Amino acid sequence: MNKETFKGVIAYPVTPFDSSENIDIPLFKKQVERLVTAGSHGIAPLGSTGVMPYLNDGEKEELAETCIRQVAGRVPTLVGVSNLTTEKTVYHAQFAEKAGATAVMIIPMSYWKLTDEEIIKHYDTVASKISIPIMVYNNPATSGVDMSPALLKRLLQIPNVTMIKESTGDIQRMYYLRKELGDEVAFFNGSNPLALAAFSAGANGWCTAAPNLIPELNIALYNAVQENNMVKAQKIFYQQIDLLKFIVAKGLPRSIKAGLDLLGVGGGNFKSPLKPLSEQEIAELDKMLLAIKDEVYQY
Amino acid sequence: MNKETFKGVIAYPVTPFDSSENIDIPLFKKQVERLVTAGSHGIAPLGSTGVMPYLNDGEKEELAETCIRQVAGRVPTLVGVSNLTTEKTVYHAQFAEKAGATAVMIIPMSYWKLTDEEIIKHYDTVASKISIPIMVYNNPATSGVDMSPALLKRLLQIPNVTMIKESTGDIQRMYYLRKELGDEVAFFNGSNPLALAAFSAGANGWCTAAPNLIPELNIALYNAVQENNMVKAQKIFYQQIDLLKFIVAKGLPRSIKAGLDLLGVGGGNFKSPLKPLSEQEIAELDKMLLAIKDEVYQY
Amino acid sequence: MNKETFKGVIAYPVTPFDSSENIDIPLFKKQVERLVTAGSHGIAPLGSTGVMPYLNDGEKEELAETCIRQVAGRVPTLVGVSNLTTEKTVYHAQFAEKAGATAVMIIPMSYWKLTDEEIIKHYDTVASKISIPIMVYNNPATSGVDMSPALLKRLLQIPNVTMIKESTGDIQRMYYLRKELGDEVAFFNGSNPLALAAFSAGANGWCTAAPNLIPELNIALYNAVQENNMVKAQKIFYQQIDLLKFIVAKGLPRSIKAGLDLLGVGGGNFKSPLKPLSEQEIAELDKMLLAIKDEVYQY
Amino acid sequence: MNKETFKGVIAYPVTPFDSSENIDIPLFKKQVERLVTAGSHGIAPLGSTGVMPYLNDGEKEELAETCIRQVAGRVPTLVGVSNLTTEKTVYHAQFAEKAGATAVMIIPMSYWKLTDEEIIKHYDTVASKISIPIMVYNNPATSGVDMSPALLKRLLQIPNVTMIKESTGDIQRMYYLRKELGDEVAFFNGSNPLALAAFSAGANGWCTAAPNLIPELNIALYNAVQENNMVKAQKIFYQQIDLLKFIVAKGLPRSIKAGLDLLGVGGGNFKSPLKPLSEQEIAELDKMLLAIKDEVYQY
Repeated sequence: MNKETFKGVIAYPVTPFDSSENIDIPLFKKQVERLVTAGSHGIAPLGSTGVMPYLNDGEKEELAETCIRQVAGRVPTLVGVSNLTTEKTVYHAQFAEKAGATAVMIIPMSYWKLTDEEIIKHYDTVASKISIPIMVYNNPATSGVDMSPALLKRLLQIPNVTMIKESTGDIQRMYYLRKELGDEVAFFNGSNPLALAAFSAGANGWCTAAPNLIPELNIALYNAVQENNMVKAQKIFYQQIDLLKFIVAKGLPRSIKAGLDLLGVGGGNFKSPLKPLSEQEIAELDKMLLAIKDEVYQY
Repeated sequence: MNKETFKGVIAYPVTPFDSSENIDIPLFKKQVERLVTAGSHGIAPLGSTGVMPYLNDGEKEELAETCIRQVAGRVPTLVGVSNLTTEKTVYHAQFAEKAGATAVMIIPMSYWKLTDEEIIKHYDTVASKISIPIMVYNNPATSGVDMSPALLKRLLQIPNVTMIKESTGDIQRMYYLRKELGDEVAFFNGSNPLALAAFSAGANGWCTAAPNLIPELNIALYNAVQENNMVKAQKIFYQQIDLLKFIVAKGLPRSIKAGLDLLGVGGGNFKSPLKPLSEQEIAELDKMLLAIKDEVYQY
Repeated sequence: MNKETFKGVIAYPVTPFDSSENIDIPLFKKQVERLVTAGSHGIAPLGSTGVMPYLNDGEKEELAETCIRQVAGRVPTLVGVSNLTTEKTVYHAQFAEKAGATAVMIIPMSYWKLTDEEIIKHYDTVASKISIPIMVYNNPATSGVDMSPALLKRLLQIPNVTMIKESTGDIQRMYYLRKELGDEVAFFNGSNPLALAAFSAGANGWCTAAPNLIPELNIALYNAVQENNMVKAQKIFYQQIDLLKFIVAKGLPRSIKAGLDLLGVGGGNFKSPLKPLSEQEIAELDKMLLAIKDEVYQY
Repeated sequence: MNKETFKGVIAYPVTPFDSSENIDIPLFKKQVERLVTAGSHGIAPLGSTGVMPYLNDGEKEELAETCIRQVAGRVPTLVGVSNLTTEKTVYHAQFAEKAGATAVMIIPMSYWKLTDEEIIKHYDTVASKISIPIMVYNNPATSGVDMSPALLKRLLQIPNVTMIKESTGDIQRMYYLRKELGDEVAFFNGSNPLALAAFSAGANGWCTAAPNLIPELNIALYNAVQENNMVKAQKIFYQQIDLLKFIVAKGLPRSIKAGLDLLGVGGGNFKSPLKPLSEQEIAELDKMLLAIKDEVYQY
């Protein structure tokens, strides 16, 4: 895979449910279509935003296939296939490859904290069973495992492990990665409020659910960075920072679905125990979306 | 349920696998039998030690049934039924009840951090579908959710929520619980290195995997506390503290299985990505077990 | 010095100021006298409670001399002499010795985080210039330096370093110290809410400002421990835990002075920028003190 | 004061001692002169780098006067006057003003954690006694007090409190400050490894000891930012990041003095308990300085 296959704004769709807690496929297709037509540079189903760990195998497979078919090659797809066991991770990764995914994203989910050797074996086993690229995803807040830059470096020696997504929210990690791994490794930022700092650190892309709500601002930020215009990038970033913080603080599935409802697209229902935002939180989000709409920087 | 149903040392079995990563039922039965005959005051299959989250439904059901049948009412059983979704938690709780479990243990597992309202609804829904008692389990290190004492108090208003297991390792939580909830609520310590402090704080019991290796010392500690003999309890505790720290630091499934191998019982294999302790760690554990055997306090 | 010189409840007086922010010596003498006659097993002027770091040299010297003279050998005295520089620490330690202190307490105060070698040299230099014992005080929350058990062990090799005061509030430290250092080293607990757990871990004493307000309960806790009566100790501890937490949460100088005012003894004024508790906090403290008075366990 | 008085690279000199631990004034003058002629945009004596808290009053006064005289108005001076007590802070602030300082920097030093009201009163009292501007300095790692953006906002209402220095190392704080306080408030970054992220967030300047060693790179980074050239700024930043991390990790006084020795300028001795870097650390620093010299980006 070309190092440039993934870059820019990688958009994460939600997973909408109907009132019986079954997936609402027509709504999902509509949501994915919006992300593509808004100009996202990649689509990533079955991520955290898509509540992947809460789904059963059938649901995961239906979502992966539906998303890939809807995107239809217009942009690359990155499918989440993480699982607690190696066996199931292999299973889902093979399914994603067969369904036509451009690449898979894998976080070393853990209940029991994994050792470095366990993590390496886990990635190595999965990598040996598929032929598409793997993005290693580091997010100790959800996975409970913090992979050191040294470990990430070792993982990159596995042939089809070619990308890193860093979501610790610590800009020092990105500085370290770039210094340690050099220009040839693609690294992506997965922490929304760190978007400006990460791009200024040299991140190749931004993995984010925000394009469900404010795709123009997300893409404009990336474009300003591409133009080497920091003043403009800063201005655009400060227009979206409050929203970026809000969706992270309140939980991505809850806040993105509420925003999609407010925008008239429809976010869909939740799978229990997850529930919608409170009325007050929804009102707060509404105010933010209106403020962005009114004052948005003309670029 | 009588408040005294569970008390003392609640023992957690591991889940042994064969070389094909299938559960080794004969070995599991042997391990459970050892825990009962050693004098454990309760048996808790499908806990963290039993790598419950790594098992599929069939495996969970077979383990629950086998364990309950093996214990055969000699002591009460506490079956772990936690799941990310409410639907599956209800499913497993109902299965456990039908299989004859004395009570179920539920931790609000989360990928997305749950709100208090979501947690209450989750427990309430499960509680309404079963008629055996529920032990609420708080362990932010594995679940990612830290339930405040105020929330725990609210959960105790749900009729069959009657017990709390605290595994934060913070003794202040136990002081707070006892002051806030009073004598009538049973609370259990789930942090091994806190065993002495928790008993001195008034904990009703100790949820632990240690009886797989050193049941005499674990039970002797409880007995010394019952005799109101702190000097003796302290002595017994200092004989086991190094081992208690070791099994927590290295991961309970890994260290307990290694210990069972060293003791000649057999620990069984692992489910990937989990792997055994290193040779060096096993040697360290061996030394600890021998030291305990040689110098054990005569009580 | 006999290992038993210090044990039990070591009481920390405040430093009362008049309205011009000068030390109120008559009030200080009265406060010290109360601590002695209440049965404290040692008196420790110029501790954190005594706002030692806020005082100039003259003030420190006057307080040390006054306190030692007032105690008049009825119980041992432990004088705080910590300073950022080694030179000034030596100066104050020598002054304390000449004034008749039984021992000095030294925390490695730091603005810049000290290395192990710097800390050892610091203690060694001070120790070589005095002939009374030194209590090493570990409290990373105020000093910014966390001394590992391994470092504490090295410090204990300096001839007159004979005692350790642990204030991390982490009971695991005490377990480790006792296991690692053995019975012959005296260690003291400096974290009020940990009093019960620390005694059950084998602490020789409790360094606390609480005897300014509730000396009977503090001493009764120690006595119950001496009687090996854990049930009684627990009961007595739960009578004081709320107050112990309050005085720590609100800051010892502020809360102890407010309590002394409420008890009619008089706490004295503050040195800016420190200010008294708010009215609401004082009311809360008053309620606690009254509750203790009303319901106190009869021992 | 014009908002633009301070901007760019504010350089922090060390405080060199002779072998008797007295300040080496001739060496200090030489070090300050180097910082000015290298193009620093401001000079800040008596900062953390200058080990201000370890100095007695006479030493502080001599350093302030010497520095201001040496700078001789070529660039503005920012003198550290923080002290535990309000009384001494006023004393040193008044001295600095009389000596000709452009502004003073004040961190709310604390042994006892200060309340918001205590902090406001502290700054207000000092501000009312001087007529030069105050830079509020937030650095919980050394001061033990973390001032919330809301508190900083309140402090800015005190007439001559006009600048904020943020050293938490958390880029989110800077985003928040800029959003909350707007363009008109000057904020400065005090965390070296955050230099690039802080400038991209809109920081007006960078308070740093690094110009003692690599002034060209520090100033070049600022210039690239001024030119709105992020690609260039990133390149220049990655040339210095390892050194910036090193000097923070090892302690600024130790590492800067070692670097000055390596550069042939002379760093001077230390005041006990602070000691020099180890031989190995010095060798590591030497390697870094040589690497920078060899490969430096031509701008």
